[in-house]
Amino acid sequence: MSAARTVRIAMNGVTGRMGYRQHLVRSLLAIRAEGGLLLPDGTRVVPEVLLVGRSEAKLAEIARRHGLDAYTTSLDQALDDPSVEVYFDAQVTTEREKALTAAIEAGKHVYTEKPVATSVDGARTLAELARAGGIKHGVVQDKLFLPGLIKLRSLVESGFFGRILAVRGEFGYWVFEGGWRPAQRPSWNYRTADGGGIVADMFCHWRYVLDHVIAPVRSVTARAVTHVPERIDEDGRPYAATADDAAYAIFELDGDVIATMNSSWATRVYRDELLTLQVDGTLGSAVAGLHGCLIQSRDATPMPVWNPDLPTEEDFRAQWQEVPQIGEPVNAFRRQWELFLSHVVADTPFPWDLVEGAKGVQLAEAGLESSRTGRRVELPELSA
Amino acid sequence: MSAARTVRIAMNGVTGRMGYRQHLVRSLLAIRAEGGLLLPDGTRVVPEVLLVGRSEAKLAEIARRHGLDAYTTSLDQALDDPSVEVYFDAQVTTEREKALTAAIEAGKHVYTEKPVATSVDGARTLAELARAGGIKHGVVQDKLFLPGLIKLRSLVESGFFGRILAVRGEFGYWVFEGGWRPAQRPSWNYRTADGGGIVADMFCHWRYVLDHVIAPVRSVTARAVTHVPERIDEDGRPYAATADDAAYAIFELDGDVIATMNSSWATRVYRDELLTLQVDGTLGSAVAGLHGCLIQSRDATPMPVWNPDLPTEEDFRAQWQEVPQIGEPVNAFRRQWELFLSHVVADTPFPWDLVEGAKGVQLAEAGLESSRTGRRVELPELSA
Amino acid sequence: MSAARTVRIAMNGVTGRMGYRQHLVRSLLAIRAEGGLLLPDGTRVVPEVLLVGRSEAKLAEIARRHGLDAYTTSLDQALDDPSVEVYFDAQVTTEREKALTAAIEAGKHVYTEKPVATSVDGARTLAELARAGGIKHGVVQDKLFLPGLIKLRSLVESGFFGRILAVRGEFGYWVFEGGWRPAQRPSWNYRTADGGGIVADMFCHWRYVLDHVIAPVRSVTARAVTHVPERIDEDGRPYAATADDAAYAIFELDGDVIATMNSSWATRVYRDELLTLQVDGTLGSAVAGLHGCLIQSRDATPMPVWNPDLPTEEDFRAQWQEVPQIGEPVNAFRRQWELFLSHVVADTPFPWDLVEGAKGVQLAEAGLESSRTGRRVELPELSA
Amino acid sequence: MSAARTVRIAMNGVTGRMGYRQHLVRSLLAIRAEGGLLLPDGTRVVPEVLLVGRSEAKLAEIARRHGLDAYTTSLDQALDDPSVEVYFDAQVTTEREKALTAAIEAGKHVYTEKPVATSVDGARTLAELARAGGIKHGVVQDKLFLPGLIKLRSLVESGFFGRILAVRGEFGYWVFEGGWRPAQRPSWNYRTADGGGIVADMFCHWRYVLDHVIAPVRSVTARAVTHVPERIDEDGRPYAATADDAAYAIFELDGDVIATMNSSWATRVYRDELLTLQVDGTLGSAVAGLHGCLIQSRDATPMPVWNPDLPTEEDFRAQWQEVPQIGEPVNAFRRQWELFLSHVVADTPFPWDLVEGAKGVQLAEAGLESSRTGRRVELPELSA
Repeated sequence: MSAARTVRIAMNGVTGRMGYRQHLVRSLLAIRAEGGLLLPDGTRVVPEVLLVGRSEAKLAEIARRHGLDAYTTSLDQALDDPSVEVYFDAQVTTEREKALTAAIEAGKHVYTEKPVATSVDGARTLAELARAGGIKHGVVQDKLFLPGLIKLRSLVESGFFGRILAVRGEFGYWVFEGGWRPAQRPSWNYRTADGGGIVADMFCHWRYVLDHVIAPVRSVTARAVTHVPERIDEDGRPYAATADDAAYAIFELDGDVIATMNSSWATRVYRDELLTLQVDGTLGSAVAGLHGCLIQSRDATPMPVWNPDLPTEEDFRAQWQEVPQIGEPVNAFRRQWELFLSHVVADTPFPWDLVEGAKGVQLAEAGLESSRTGRRVELPELSA
Repeated sequence: MSAARTVRIAMNGVTGRMGYRQHLVRSLLAIRAEGGLLLPDGTRVVPEVLLVGRSEAKLAEIARRHGLDAYTTSLDQALDDPSVEVYFDAQVTTEREKALTAAIEAGKHVYTEKPVATSVDGARTLAELARAGGIKHGVVQDKLFLPGLIKLRSLVESGFFGRILAVRGEFGYWVFEGGWRPAQRPSWNYRTADGGGIVADMFCHWRYVLDHVIAPVRSVTARAVTHVPERIDEDGRPYAATADDAAYAIFELDGDVIATMNSSWATRVYRDELLTLQVDGTLGSAVAGLHGCLIQSRDATPMPVWNPDLPTEEDFRAQWQEVPQIGEPVNAFRRQWELFLSHVVADTPFPWDLVEGAKGVQLAEAGLESSRTGRRVELPELSA
Repeated sequence: MSAARTVRIAMNGVTGRMGYRQHLVRSLLAIRAEGGLLLPDGTRVVPEVLLVGRSEAKLAEIARRHGLDAYTTSLDQALDDPSVEVYFDAQVTTEREKALTAAIEAGKHVYTEKPVATSVDGARTLAELARAGGIKHGVVQDKLFLPGLIKLRSLVESGFFGRILAVRGEFGYWVFEGGWRPAQRPSWNYRTADGGGIVADMFCHWRYVLDHVIAPVRSVTARAVTHVPERIDEDGRPYAATADDAAYAIFELDGDVIATMNSSWATRVYRDELLTLQVDGTLGSAVAGLHGCLIQSRDATPMPVWNPDLPTEEDFRAQWQEVPQIGEPVNAFRRQWELFLSHVVADTPFPWDLVEGAKGVQLAEAGLESSRTGRRVELPELSA
Repeated sequence: MSAARTVRIAMNGVTGRMGYRQHLVRSLLAIRAEGGLLLPDGTRVVPEVLLVGRSEAKLAEIARRHGLDAYTTSLDQALDDPSVEVYFDAQVTTEREKALTAAIEAGKHVYTEKPVATSVDGARTLAELARAGGIKHGVVQDKLFLPGLIKLRSLVESGFFGRILAVRGEFGYWVFEGGWRPAQRPSWNYRTADGGGIVADMFCHWRYVLDHVIAPVRSVTARAVTHVPERIDEDGRPYAATADDAAYAIFELDGDVIATMNSSWATRVYRDELLTLQVDGTLGSAVAGLHGCLIQSRDATPMPVWNPDLPTEEDFRAQWQEVPQIGEPVNAFRRQWELFLSHVVADTPFPWDLVEGAKGVQLAEAGLESSRTGRRVELPELSA
């Protein structure tokens, strides 16, 4: 029989879609439902949840639905509770820094959604506080644990690409303006004052994806724009979209790798998946999505003929080969939670910490600066 | 009966692949074979060819193959011939400016491949000379006459896009390094000293494609790199590839349109065609290639759900619709030749002149400057 | 916790197929089963049903099957019951006017199937009574809430069509004559004296569909006929089909839109759905059915060549594109019930009232007059 | 050996698309190329062509291309030529009446495109002249000889339908407005003053198709409109489209058959063919196009269930069966030419004469009158 080790977690912000669906239901409750996380030494880590939020009605409804008994609208009360070991934050961005600071000061381990703060200074301060406090800390970097990116990382590790030359990223889809067809994202995403903007939201992701899958990012040249300046909000009222809804970036990485990345909520999708990354290397190339990953080695590379007279007869897309899925895919959020719980209980390595989180904020800040000034912006080394 | 009007053309550089195949065989000889170009007033314009080149043997072989009787290795002699009305240039770039200058000074009309010169100053001087000389002049802008780009232009004209927001261009394929598999492009393309480089080659195209299909280009931010620094030449000898073989650019166009354009000879193709342009507008989007063109209107736009747990079930690529081909496609080079011949004989409009050619050179120069300095470069207005 | 607000509804005529299946089971009982209708303010509206009808046996059987406890064969008793707030009518048409009048006079809110009365005068009197009585009133206009017509309406709102030119409607299927194969509709539908006839039945639908999806109907030219003059009734006895079983109509709408509408119970179906509406506009066309909706924009419009020598090679039907379904479809009857319950409890807008119901009767009356006289009949403005 | 009997035919108007392609090349030249038309008595009727037209250049070009030696720009000269037996007219409508009158007065047999005249009075006068002159006369009614309509007529003759109840006709496609995409029909089609209009063009066809395939037409109720009021002509100039470009008609035929017919140059095609006719009868239904013809007998008729909750699962279109093509299809124009030549030479029956041609004009005139007055218009019996 394995020993059970309970870890009590104060979850703040799980009434939002992502916090509720991915972190609560698909991660922690799923781990509980299977009896906890089995560590190599036989210990079962059983997460226990204390819901924290502003709307008592919503918390009660979630608690009822999932048979939970603990919720509170007071963050202070949650942080005062000595049985709580971990504080998790999935609030709107503008609330995060304050709450994380309080949690660290209360001596809790912290695990948090990104962006960790609204400025790189704030993010660094958090990392320093955490180091000084000696607590364990982590930042959600879910895309690293998606099946497609796991395959891509394994291609890098196996040497498949030879020398990597370039990365082409495309992310986005059409977010409806509201009105004749309701918007599928909340309106605060499109207001600067509320922490909105695609750079703030997505450059955090691109930083850890590029740093951890390809090579560390060293500079950014970007143009952020607002393609759709007026939208209709949740109550049917027009509002000015002040935040950027598309960003076009050229990143330079260690090893002379160039990575271009288009991020847009104003594009229509003619791709296999909502996010795709093409990596070209001297020995081969890959196109990875969230789930799939295709490869073409240099020996399989065709020699296309440019012929303006005739439609192409080559089916270029058929010349790629699927990387097989090894084992059942695991929910990316859950996978990272498992690694964090193990880090808390068994002190296993967990490299995705607040310093890494600060790097994401740094890239977003630098991207917006580059867009304003029209200049390439270098990224100084960050450490806690 | 229709009257025949002969136009004698000195063709310089038709021993190269493009000059021979597209300009001589598929354009002028094809027009001749059909009895000439029929103008609206009933006149038939019959092109007559004088081959000019350096290798007498090659010229003789081409002449023999196609039953031609006139060729010379002396450009001067060709330009002295009063029966020659038009000078056409498809030489290597470094030879072009001198030859065009001589032709203009000899009072010939000129039609030329791009880049028209190796510097924007040289290109502007040519345009001024041509204007002062009162001759007719034109620059090959073949991509405008490809079926896919004709469809794209017609979408713009019909108002399909609403307000155009952004363009995503991808161009390129893998050019083999030579050696184990021979390169499919000549080695001078990879040497700066010989006028090589993908920026010099392709930015001329992107300038007229964006200017004439979407909106005038106003600035460029670009990063040009040499991904493959050593290649093997036609004789099996390694050489240093000094010229850029990939360029990543962000163009800003009139009307706040952003156009990103990746050009690379070191990428593998996971696209429908070697060149693709995605255009996103408020009312609809299109993905155009050399021949095909797909559209998605905003009413047909899906509302994709981001679900990290499951592979996408939506077939995003199937949600686009082919723009029908109206009429038989005509070879793009031939189509522009017909317009130029009509311009020469009947003075019909021909907007693709040496000023437009100079704009292409300007964009290439600015792109390289941006890459060196890490800054956005504005493009001043050009005129002859 | 949300507050529950019970609304008691006397349902008259739910022993018929439509009343039972769509209004009772699929609408009100389904809403009950899910705990009521959640309003934005958190109130849950829980419908409670009192069955009314002529056959006690049938009422008892329905009550038993669904665990209901309240039914009566006395309409008066139901209307005297002060706990009843809403009267709903799904009786045969000839009984409706009298019952609705009684319900309005008893101060109940009324919701009713169409046609609301057998004459436009009767229908207007109902609307005036309802207005004078200050009660809330609504008329079933289910087709507006079908997925296909919701998509069509959203195309109109988005401006997809440009200027709408014309509508082609086809409705119908073969209703068997009885005898060798039993009829799938009741015999009273085919007897004028019993309120039968396809014009009386369907023109009410066409009025609200055209008025609310396309543009207000201003005139009608119609030919109503009885294609099958003798049928076999439910007891196997031949009877004279005195009512019209097909009607061919040309409607003229605001904005010079022409809408043709063929309605027939004597046609065989070579269409995708039992009801199809093709809408042609300057910028695009759509073909909507009950569920699906296909579009072709003008840029995707082919240029067909009329060639009497060869079978068409173009697959015209493949040149259309499906409008995506956004969200899960909801039963159309239930959706309108939800809006009516919200109207009753929270006073939200509900434009589909007895005046709109009278307009449907007006169109049916005018259609029959046009058929008799061979003249186009204008529709005067109606209001309560 | 069979005897050859030459018939010399003056063909007026063969520089137009239809006259050239269908009447000259696909009919008379094709018959000549096969050695003439073989009559049952062994005679070979060899047509000989005298081209008549206004543009000598165009006539010369056609003559050259097909190795013909006779052409003239003088109609008088052609009619004075005693070797000419038959006069054929494919001119624009406004020129036809005068030329046919001259030909009849010159004692020629006449065969002519429709409409035979611009007024029913003119058409009747022609028929009377022809009868008085004792010449043979015919009017092109090509659609009767299309494979799809031949199959439909054979279904009628075999009694497949039982009693015919109704006909639904759909004809049309999108004629581009010119400008961004050139129009595929000549601009005179859209100007009343030049004899344009879809009623004038197509109602002649619907008259003979309904009269000869289904039953004689007795009345018409129609609405003719101009959906696209401005178009761009052949020279790129906008013009006012004064003629009707769509007509919505309800015809009543002998035997209480109702035939609805939508004709439009402003509709997009979601049908199998550009013209489709659905015929419903008590025993079965058919859907005919130009080439194909599908049937469903009453025993194969499904009993569709109206279910607003679920997308239709029935594939209604798959429940029809193709009528087989017996023998190779023959060009419809050629087939009627063969019957006319046989009529001229061997006096075989030819029911499609100038009286039938006048009936077509009568229907067009009545259709426009009905549209103007908003009344059903009866069609008096016509005879020569």
